Amino acid sequence: MKKGLLIVLSGPSGAGKGTVYNAVTACCPMLKKSISVTTRKPRNGEQEGVHYYFRTVEEYRKMKANGEFLETAEVYKNFYGTPQAPVFRMLEEGNDVFFEIDIAGAKQIKQKYPECVSVFLMPPSFAVLEQRLRGRGTEDEESLATRIGSARSELAQYACFDYIVFNDDAQAATKQVIEIIAAERCKISRNEQTILKMLEK
Amino acid sequence: MKKGLLIVLSGPSGAGKGTVYNAVTACCPMLKKSISVTTRKPRNGEQEGVHYYFRTVEEYRKMKANGEFLETAEVYKNFYGTPQAPVFRMLEEGNDVFFEIDIAGAKQIKQKYPECVSVFLMPPSFAVLEQRLRGRGTEDEESLATRIGSARSELAQYACFDYIVFNDDAQAATKQVIEIIAAERCKISRNEQTILKMLEK
Repeated sequence: MKKGLLIVLSGPSGAGKGTVYNAVTACCPMLKKSISVTTRKPRNGEQEGVHYYFRTVEEYRKMKANGEFLETAEVYKNFYGTPQAPVFRMLEEGNDVFFEIDIAGAKQIKQKYPECVSVFLMPPSFAVLEQRLRGRGTEDEESLATRIGSARSELAQYACFDYIVFNDDAQAATKQVIEIIAAERCKISRNEQTILKMLEK
Repeated sequence: MKKGLLIVLSGPSGAGKGTVYNAVTACCPMLKKSISVTTRKPRNGEQEGVHYYFRTVEEYRKMKANGEFLETAEVYKNFYGTPQAPVFRMLEEGNDVFFEIDIAGAKQIKQKYPECVSVFLMPPSFAVLEQRLRGRGTEDEESLATRIGSARSELAQYACFDYIVFNDDAQAATKQVIEIIAAERCKISRNEQTILKMLEK
């Protein structure tokens, strides 16, 4: 059985990760998603095992202590984590797993699973990044300045990634991510078993 | 100026290199071809500097002694070689250069220019390979057996390559080669200058 690929789409906030992630999964329905554990309360319509696994803080801490997470994060006093076992099971079964995650999370995954394919989604410029963040209308000037500052330091972390995609245009960026996934499937290192089997005949 | 990619399409004879190469260049007219030096006489319609650079054996030997070739080969008492300078010039000018070449040539190029992207085109099976070689109708049983034997030992050299494309279907294989080229353009290592320039702003 050929092992699946673990693909990570990351980038600073405002780079357009969500849009590109959704477009890629819409084009490639065979890509598997991972379901995160969270300690926050379910929102309206959110279902256990579909959107999240909802756990108590105590349960979360126990899982973390047991090394059950591929990556973890704390956001506004809530904890989030990606359980490792189901992801590794999907990969062993030959499925490709696709993540959208922030840069800190992507770095944790790369450390735990270096064979993963990491894609850094880059906003075309700081001007566009600022414009996108403003366009959301959810931030005041101060938090906007903080976000832009942190985007700059996040951008400087590009070197930990395998690929970079400039998101000038979401459709073109989506195509590039799909091409990266397709190319990675053709890597010699990911096809040795198939080749050796053919040579044996 | 972002340096171009050098892409090498190789594989055993009968893998379908020529068909896939022509289909890729038809889809991607911006890919530059390289023109080889040969010591054989021009055939009908072949033009100097278009199909080949026609040189005497003495001129060829001098070029070889000067280290002017990226790779060389001897076929039926004729010498062939790829002049290095024009290829490197095209790459420096930001052009991608695309080669179709046998496995020995591909290995020479990889040694001289490790940044090159090498793609191994694999026939789907030995049965199909034999069928394709027979289909050409140009070989007797003995030379056919030789060709199939050498294809087997050539296949065993896959590990020197970066990518493998299984040529079950020429159209699908062509698409995969194009995806590999597109993905390689997104490699972090090939985009550092662009990123650093953006971060400076």
